[in-house]
Amino acid sequence: MSYTIDMKNVIEQWSVFEANFDGPEQGNPFIDVILSAEFRSGTKSATVNGFYDGDGVYRIRFMPDSPGEWTFCTNSNVKSLNEKSGGFICVSPSAGIHGPVRVKNQFHFKYSDGKPYFPVGTTCYAWIHQTEELQERTLQTLSGSPFNKIRMCVFPKHYDYNHNEPSRYPYDGSLKAGFNFQRFNPSFFRHLEQRILGLQKLGVECDLILFHPYDRWGFSAMGSQNDDLYLQYIVSRLSSFRNIWWSLANEYDIMERTISGHSGTPSKVPGDWDRFAQIIQKNDPYHHLISIHNCMRMFDHKKSWVTHCSIQRMDVYKTSENTDEWRREFGKPVVIDECSYEGNINHGWGNITGQEMTRRYWEGMLRGGYVGHGETYVHPQEILWWSHGGELYGTSPSRIAFLKKIIEDAPAEINPISKSQDGIDMNWDVTVGTVGEDFFLYYFGFNQPSFRTFRMPEGKGYHIDIIDTWDMSIIPLSGVFSNQFRIDLPAKQYIAIRMTAIR
Amino acid sequence: MSYTIDMKNVIEQWSVFEANFDGPEQGNPFIDVILSAEFRSGTKSATVNGFYDGDGVYRIRFMPDSPGEWTFCTNSNVKSLNEKSGGFICVSPSAGIHGPVRVKNQFHFKYSDGKPYFPVGTTCYAWIHQTEELQERTLQTLSGSPFNKIRMCVFPKHYDYNHNEPSRYPYDGSLKAGFNFQRFNPSFFRHLEQRILGLQKLGVECDLILFHPYDRWGFSAMGSQNDDLYLQYIVSRLSSFRNIWWSLANEYDIMERTISGHSGTPSKVPGDWDRFAQIIQKNDPYHHLISIHNCMRMFDHKKSWVTHCSIQRMDVYKTSENTDEWRREFGKPVVIDECSYEGNINHGWGNITGQEMTRRYWEGMLRGGYVGHGETYVHPQEILWWSHGGELYGTSPSRIAFLKKIIEDAPAEINPISKSQDGIDMNWDVTVGTVGEDFFLYYFGFNQPSFRTFRMPEGKGYHIDIIDTWDMSIIPLSGVFSNQFRIDLPAKQYIAIRMTAIR
Repeated sequence: MSYTIDMKNVIEQWSVFEANFDGPEQGNPFIDVILSAEFRSGTKSATVNGFYDGDGVYRIRFMPDSPGEWTFCTNSNVKSLNEKSGGFICVSPSAGIHGPVRVKNQFHFKYSDGKPYFPVGTTCYAWIHQTEELQERTLQTLSGSPFNKIRMCVFPKHYDYNHNEPSRYPYDGSLKAGFNFQRFNPSFFRHLEQRILGLQKLGVECDLILFHPYDRWGFSAMGSQNDDLYLQYIVSRLSSFRNIWWSLANEYDIMERTISGHSGTPSKVPGDWDRFAQIIQKNDPYHHLISIHNCMRMFDHKKSWVTHCSIQRMDVYKTSENTDEWRREFGKPVVIDECSYEGNINHGWGNITGQEMTRRYWEGMLRGGYVGHGETYVHPQEILWWSHGGELYGTSPSRIAFLKKIIEDAPAEINPISKSQDGIDMNWDVTVGTVGEDFFLYYFGFNQPSFRTFRMPEGKGYHIDIIDTWDMSIIPLSGVFSNQFRIDLPAKQYIAIRMTAIR
Repeated sequence: MSYTIDMKNVIEQWSVFEANFDGPEQGNPFIDVILSAEFRSGTKSATVNGFYDGDGVYRIRFMPDSPGEWTFCTNSNVKSLNEKSGGFICVSPSAGIHGPVRVKNQFHFKYSDGKPYFPVGTTCYAWIHQTEELQERTLQTLSGSPFNKIRMCVFPKHYDYNHNEPSRYPYDGSLKAGFNFQRFNPSFFRHLEQRILGLQKLGVECDLILFHPYDRWGFSAMGSQNDDLYLQYIVSRLSSFRNIWWSLANEYDIMERTISGHSGTPSKVPGDWDRFAQIIQKNDPYHHLISIHNCMRMFDHKKSWVTHCSIQRMDVYKTSENTDEWRREFGKPVVIDECSYEGNINHGWGNITGQEMTRRYWEGMLRGGYVGHGETYVHPQEILWWSHGGELYGTSPSRIAFLKKIIEDAPAEINPISKSQDGIDMNWDVTVGTVGEDFFLYYFGFNQPSFRTFRMPEGKGYHIDIIDTWDMSIIPLSGVFSNQFRIDLPAKQYIAIRMTAIR
């Protein structure tokens, strides 16, 4: 077989090559037609699925992970789609393109090109189901925010403050007449893709929630066969987007039948999640990150398909303070995607202060985890960032940006202080993030010490900054500190001390 | 045998009758002389121990628990002290005398006359070891405070901020020459008694800590025999004081050999506590409350001699929020005697804000427990309330007084909301104290809801007050509320709602 590469077909590494073909419209192309392609470059090869995009159009998308000439050949049960071939040139990516995010050093993340990635996420569950104008405003807000990951649902959301009808549905049908769970609505998915690309342009990872329980349309209870069809379809469409993360569910435990008295339609059994993960893994040649998010019951994140923990607060009082414990328990990156929301709504998960949100960020990040933001201030038009997007009104985002810079400025990823460094547990009452002996970040949280004494590793000298994490000031102390010394502190809450070893 | 009652010997119920006798001075009267007396009134009888008070004087003290004629007869191994008899008239107590505190309804407390007692404690470990002037100032401060219980040590304290030498020692000897642990210093104990009576006058219960690890004199490591002698002596002297509670130890686990690297002299083995409790029970005919206080490891408060839990914070973030869990676990009153200290010292246990101290009070008291206060602000003369007494500088005591009034005003003791009242766990995010269906106290802590909806027991109407626990305001809502309704709230921290059923 010979391949023709159109030399005008030039794609940047980690961008999307798309080949389109005309094919059958009759029957149910979403089910009847099988289409895939094998992509090759030198000794490399990858098989990707195509998908039906309506109007007799079939598409195959591919994200190359290395520069060079790439060719492909299709395989289909439909003659007009079978053994189609072609190719493209992949060139090195331009600045700002770093590829999909991977796990780094067991507990952290990096882009595929090695650049560190520190997740600083937020949540806007149903932002793609709001008016176009509001969606644009959400992207605008994100562009001026510290957030580089967003949790968002494919399906619309039915819950308190969420009663509007979306303008597009993922399936043929209507709320009144019901939906055909075997006929996707391609325009819905094209819109979804447009929004994912909008995020990509801003450098925001899309943590895409595939199932959730807050539903009045039936999308949470389509039955196993339709669930599987949906997963295969969406993964075939989206896996070539470099900023995709797969989140199997928001509040998986609410979707199982084990918790009574909660809203939503319980519709999943525990084994479903393993099967879903297998379907994704089988259809995603790029191995995007996969997680699953809890409500009241921790998921067993030790399962092999879970790339990182995605955790919601299960206790009113203590959440990100458990980060180091969860690292030990699961041996994976800990992302506390919901530590509660800054806001003032009636629900306890949605009415913490900006100070408390910021404190939870510091407590989690210094323990070598990653914390997610969210916001739920009462709004006259019921536009709450948490679900609708729009504007941010809270006081935490600027403080989160301040912390993000401090994390980025550290010599490497931060891990919690080890017991051996801790000596006789002198730090039981302070949270300490470290980079070996080169960097220490002490955080006193809601405590308000007026001074503190330190005993540092012998033979090392440190520059010291006093950081007010709320006022966002960094005051360097003059001189070099070593061995044992005392540091005076302002006797107020939310103070940190940064110690950076002199090289 | 005939008894002579001196009709001028009139004692109020729950006050102290004292009979004094001259006896031998030679040898070691603390060890050589055995002295007790049997007191009788009608069919009642009680045996109490006497004690040697130095200078050839022996004393027998007795606290009558009912009015009427009481007679006694002594028993001794010394002839001049044997078969001494006498008596007194016990009259009803005057206002303000309510007798020793007892456990009420499994989780609460009352005085012996049935009056409810709500412990609102504080801690001044070493106040009796400071200057006389400072001791008087401490009593003065207590008299204007909400506190009706104080944790205090018999022995002096050696620790950060505590390096002064006391003016009296409980034993013959000196720091330099050592102490004779078999020869008590009666003037030390007379002074201690004077201070306990000073507290009694103010209505303050004395939670007397019998052993503690912070020691440079050897009192924490006297050996079993001397420990036992000490307990017998002090219980014989003090058990007739109605405001005595026995606390076997501060930080019992630091006194055991199981925790390494901590200051203090580890000197006790786990079995010691049971033996100590037996000695107290044998020598205290009044059955005063007995507890034991932890540092990092919870004591097994299920042991039969423990009358109530005396708990120190073991977690930086979550303490009094565990109250209902501890009630279930131990089945006894939960007194969180150390939830951290309001202050600004270097140690994490001693630098929480007044807001956080107040919050911890509310979280514990609404869950049907009792929380203790303490204060550790840096002071130019190192006079910190926590150990030295003196003045209170913090912002929490006035808020604790405000809460105390609310607790006293409730129709009965507050218990945490039961699961059956809780319905489908609608209150997971709010702390709710109740008195059946007659009284509900909701507390939102650090959350800041702008409104809340309620579903109350059918057929009941409630008066509602909005309480700002920090600003100390109580705003009654007009009207009567029943069934389901919404309450608007000020969207700030530390707000409570009180609902009182209309009779």
